[in-house]
Amino acid sequence: MQAPRIAATYRFAAGTRDWTERAQLLALEQSVELPADALRDPRIVADIVARVESVEPQADGSAAVRLALSTQTVGEDAGQLMNMLFGNSSLHPDVELVDVDVPPPLARQFGGPSLGIAGLRSLTRADGRPLTCTALKPIGTTPQKLGELCATFARAGLDLVKDDHGWADQPSAPFEARVRACQAAVAAQVTGTLYLPSLSGHYAQMQRQIDFARELGVKAFLIAPMVCGVSTFNALVKANPGVGFMAHPALAGAARIAPPALLGKLFRLFGADATIFPNHGGRFSYARGVCDGIAAAARAPWHGLRATFPVPAGGMSVERVDELKRDYGTDTVLLIGGSLLSAQERLYERSCAFVRAVAEPHAAEAA
Amino acid sequence: MQAPRIAATYRFAAGTRDWTERAQLLALEQSVELPADALRDPRIVADIVARVESVEPQADGSAAVRLALSTQTVGEDAGQLMNMLFGNSSLHPDVELVDVDVPPPLARQFGGPSLGIAGLRSLTRADGRPLTCTALKPIGTTPQKLGELCATFARAGLDLVKDDHGWADQPSAPFEARVRACQAAVAAQVTGTLYLPSLSGHYAQMQRQIDFARELGVKAFLIAPMVCGVSTFNALVKANPGVGFMAHPALAGAARIAPPALLGKLFRLFGADATIFPNHGGRFSYARGVCDGIAAAARAPWHGLRATFPVPAGGMSVERVDELKRDYGTDTVLLIGGSLLSAQERLYERSCAFVRAVAEPHAAEAA
Repeated sequence: MQAPRIAATYRFAAGTRDWTERAQLLALEQSVELPADALRDPRIVADIVARVESVEPQADGSAAVRLALSTQTVGEDAGQLMNMLFGNSSLHPDVELVDVDVPPPLARQFGGPSLGIAGLRSLTRADGRPLTCTALKPIGTTPQKLGELCATFARAGLDLVKDDHGWADQPSAPFEARVRACQAAVAAQVTGTLYLPSLSGHYAQMQRQIDFARELGVKAFLIAPMVCGVSTFNALVKANPGVGFMAHPALAGAARIAPPALLGKLFRLFGADATIFPNHGGRFSYARGVCDGIAAAARAPWHGLRATFPVPAGGMSVERVDELKRDYGTDTVLLIGGSLLSAQERLYERSCAFVRAVAEPHAAEAA
Repeated sequence: MQAPRIAATYRFAAGTRDWTERAQLLALEQSVELPADALRDPRIVADIVARVESVEPQADGSAAVRLALSTQTVGEDAGQLMNMLFGNSSLHPDVELVDVDVPPPLARQFGGPSLGIAGLRSLTRADGRPLTCTALKPIGTTPQKLGELCATFARAGLDLVKDDHGWADQPSAPFEARVRACQAAVAAQVTGTLYLPSLSGHYAQMQRQIDFARELGVKAFLIAPMVCGVSTFNALVKANPGVGFMAHPALAGAARIAPPALLGKLFRLFGADATIFPNHGGRFSYARGVCDGIAAAARAPWHGLRATFPVPAGGMSVERVDELKRDYGTDTVLLIGGSLLSAQERLYERSCAFVRAVAEPHAAEAA
């Protein structure tokens, strides 16, 4: 019996020649990195070399190539899965990774979200509606001022207040001082607002940040898996069960990996309880179909893994809440950052309007 | 006096509209992630917000935008530097990061290679010529068989034998068994061949792998910074002075960051003693100018950082050695992998021919 394989679908750009041969070369590149004539061991040919399952020309002139990759090349490491999916092929500018599926044992091994939608929701008081979220900005703000922002957001009843992904351990607001001020501010309100600090550095540094923050009552964190590496991300999720992780797409947009596969499936596989993506019609240019694809991949039944909250973001506003609710439904985190902060001295009122718009049908349009 | 800033150059694709406005938005995105009207604190506007230095239309219809980024947004973390250079902007498909320079204090902080060209060379017996390097393939090979390959390569006098970047901790050749077999094999020869194991996982796992291997006499390692994350990479270099690190470009090709900036400058800044890139005319399609740019960035005088070996690779052969020597000169590592292994039972002879071709003028052409 053959061991189950990883299914990876790639797209060769229109204009690529000799698809069938290129598909064979891709299969060699993403498994043994050797020409076929250098392979003599029949066990390696049978068990290790990636198999070309299909090559299908598409209407737009491109071709979809489906490979079956051996799980033996991956071992147990998330970074190694990325490596075998797209490590070397990322160096071919006409190849895109468009979809991936893993066999159930590999899904169980990486484990997916430890909380998922239901678990992250149960950490908040939100039920039967999308969660509300905002971001602390800009870098350069002092811990004291960030604490004041947190207090305002918490008083308004936002569910989640996350650090911007740009927060690391900068001198203007070092991690510990920032987390102390922000966590104290949300804890002082009775609204149940969660503060999510941004993790930075390597595994050991991030684990220290988690330990420090949990001691103060922090329950969830922001992390950028393509910046810190997916091995680090997956290992932190496994080492900290019950802790929430919201994934940020920094550096992920350039990866020539289809966003539903990367931000939806792979980030979920590695443990994201929520996954941020740039929604259409904001500051970024993801098409609506791409955004729908991310949300579907994050929430669809998949090997028994917990579902991940899609977090449409990137220039959203209170005025778009009804549309976002219609588009993405209840199991969504709505993230509005800069647009709230632009309200300046009316920040509290604007935050309340956001909370109201999410809680009540058509409140935003009526406002 | 103004603090020195990070100089980052981006390219807006041809067809992009409103360059000046887009440049301002890029400056906001890569520093404060806030609209200008939400910024009131004059200190943040002066010290934190990225400045647009110039916007220059290019002959090909694109535009080069030079930003000056505040070092205050970076702190001390390599991942955070990537974040501030290209985190969110990676999500804009029409923006590419083409060049970067950092102020001397930041260069000193990240530190660059701990060995550099001179130091890595002194670990080998190579003088006055390029270093020779090959790779252990394919995944699925047993440790015993890998040891035999190492013995053959070492007997032939290759300077460096590295793991393929696909080696992690797979059941067919777990890290410790593999390193034991390979290191014993090179150590048994008197040629001074170095074996470079591939590191995988997160920081703590990689540090354990380094400790285990150094105990056996291993002096240098292979690492894929875009897979493990540059924070992990830079921290490992700093934590292990005198240990060599060869950087692999896995996942780096898709990053829409110009290869000379990423594989040349940034990998060097974070500590690569040698940096592998897909040479023109091999299995990948980098243009010759790009390859020259990588080599120049790796070796040029830069803030007193040690120089990094360029490692042209990706489908090279013994027949191309003279050309590679002419193109890249003495301070280069020549990496030939699959083409040696294709020789099968003539592997030793082929490896000797490689060594000879590098050592002697025109030996390859005469062979």
